[in-house]
Amino acid sequence: MRMIKWQNGTVITLDQTKLPLQEVTLEINSVDQMAEAIKVLRVRGAPLLGAAASFGIALAAYHSTATSREKLLVELENAGAFIKRQRPTAVNLFWGVDRVLYKAKAVKGNAAEVKKAVILEAQQVADEDASQNRKIGKHGSILIKDGDTILTHCNAGELATVEYGTALGVIRKAWEEGKKIKVIADETRPLLQGSRLTAYELKRDGIPVTLITDNMAGYVMSKGLINLVIVGADRIVQDAVFNKIGTYSVAVLAHEHKIPFYVAAPKSTFDLTRKAANIEVEERKPEEVTQIERMQIAPKGIEVMNPAFDATPLKYITAIITENRIIYNKDFGDFKKGKI
Amino acid sequence: MRMIKWQNGTVITLDQTKLPLQEVTLEINSVDQMAEAIKVLRVRGAPLLGAAASFGIALAAYHSTATSREKLLVELENAGAFIKRQRPTAVNLFWGVDRVLYKAKAVKGNAAEVKKAVILEAQQVADEDASQNRKIGKHGSILIKDGDTILTHCNAGELATVEYGTALGVIRKAWEEGKKIKVIADETRPLLQGSRLTAYELKRDGIPVTLITDNMAGYVMSKGLINLVIVGADRIVQDAVFNKIGTYSVAVLAHEHKIPFYVAAPKSTFDLTRKAANIEVEERKPEEVTQIERMQIAPKGIEVMNPAFDATPLKYITAIITENRIIYNKDFGDFKKGKI
Repeated sequence: MRMIKWQNGTVITLDQTKLPLQEVTLEINSVDQMAEAIKVLRVRGAPLLGAAASFGIALAAYHSTATSREKLLVELENAGAFIKRQRPTAVNLFWGVDRVLYKAKAVKGNAAEVKKAVILEAQQVADEDASQNRKIGKHGSILIKDGDTILTHCNAGELATVEYGTALGVIRKAWEEGKKIKVIADETRPLLQGSRLTAYELKRDGIPVTLITDNMAGYVMSKGLINLVIVGADRIVQDAVFNKIGTYSVAVLAHEHKIPFYVAAPKSTFDLTRKAANIEVEERKPEEVTQIERMQIAPKGIEVMNPAFDATPLKYITAIITENRIIYNKDFGDFKKGKI
Repeated sequence: MRMIKWQNGTVITLDQTKLPLQEVTLEINSVDQMAEAIKVLRVRGAPLLGAAASFGIALAAYHSTATSREKLLVELENAGAFIKRQRPTAVNLFWGVDRVLYKAKAVKGNAAEVKKAVILEAQQVADEDASQNRKIGKHGSILIKDGDTILTHCNAGELATVEYGTALGVIRKAWEEGKKIKVIADETRPLLQGSRLTAYELKRDGIPVTLITDNMAGYVMSKGLINLVIVGADRIVQDAVFNKIGTYSVAVLAHEHKIPFYVAAPKSTFDLTRKAANIEVEERKPEEVTQIERMQIAPKGIEVMNPAFDATPLKYITAIITENRIIYNKDFGDFKKGKI
């Protein structure tokens, strides 16, 4: 199922804040609406954010009244900067904006020609993501054996991508190949992407899934219930993988239990100019921790930490699965040299 | 503040399911009411459960119409068996029942004399818990240095005991000694004892506390923010400490980060006739995971695991603090020989 698409100047997607209880289609008609949807996680998931960012620039182009090429490019630059500010850690957002802006600047024609190229490029970004995820699934599925139980954290599924999913794409492929597998999904506090999205998506597709709270991950591992862990990634830097808060805890637990820990992510997630220490981690509002759907679950005014991501050092990662291949830990030197 | 007390045939306590938003006093007048309060966690926390169980037998005695000693003892035995069935993992429940039943049988007088002795013994159990916790606090506080930040999981506070708390008793004592400390509290899904109870209790008492979701424990450790971990215990067996689900994950993370991991618990928590493999772990209802205050947060009908406790092998535990002393890991052989 296509999670995001362009339809005559409107971007059509699913409002993920309403899942799993309601499937509400979201029609986005402006850069402002796209920025809001990104900010409050109506649209979320690293690869989907890449496509959403590209489509944001396409919306800016489509609705622009600029008649000169130069004026249009300035508008697109501003739209891109605005979109990037919504979520500082997600590299795909930056990548999606920059790729379309690069195309806009490369087109030598007039404003109308630039607009057309920008819209086509955004659609191209989405199409490529769908095809890359199937490749990730194909490469990764050999890591899953018949009968395996797989732990996953957050949602790196179809709902996080344009189609098919990354971590859940690998699981989906193994399932399509007829392997009898089971998934255990961390609920992923504070925003519950595991219970709201991963459990929903796998149940919808008939793949057996059991929901646990995040703090049960160690328990299920200690009971020998987990054969491998697969998660997605929001940004892969020289020395670590940034992903949803809690990923690092799961990686340490997997390491202690000698359970393979895999990351599935497209090449666009790699940001090899940087190290973990230089990445700003998005701190989200305290109400995400102290309230659930506006219901207060903690004392009012309590001090809270709410980092959206954590960094898992590469030593805890068994392999990274990209659309090109599986990169095993011993070859991580490769991607640091740009060979992904 | 006394968390539980006897008042003319009524047990007075706080309905902990209503915290932190409301402080509702609970008046318990029968064994059935006490069993319900234990089952749904209106009364919870290992040491408090010991006192509650003792008071449950006292209620059975007080309201009994039995005129013969023998008939009364049968009623008390039945009440004890009923109370024990409410939560199979909590050893203090068994201990509280058995201690009062032992006293009842030891009294050689008539029914009236047995009743009187039972009620006095239950009050004695409560008084001893209050005094033991202060001793635990005194022994343990030397482990906390001025300026330390302490991570805790679940609620082993005053709210989990008759008075003062075990893990939070140690923290409270250090605070009373003038040490400038901070606490980071795991929210402790599914029932949120960390956010609802620990954050509430520490804030009420003016001890600085910051709330995190359970899956942030690894993150805060990796950032060097945690100097030590202190938790309570529900049952200590020959080879492991049973405590709230998620404790094991925190212990593994502390071990990986070389952070001391302490358990504070009275001697009544020790059950040295058994090993972890022989302990039944209470599996609670799935709605605790799929709903918060009756609001659905996961797909309907999703498969769920909901163990209430996990077992932390002794190798992850730096020391256990009892009312007698600190037992360091190298001396754990002592308590296996009954020397606590």
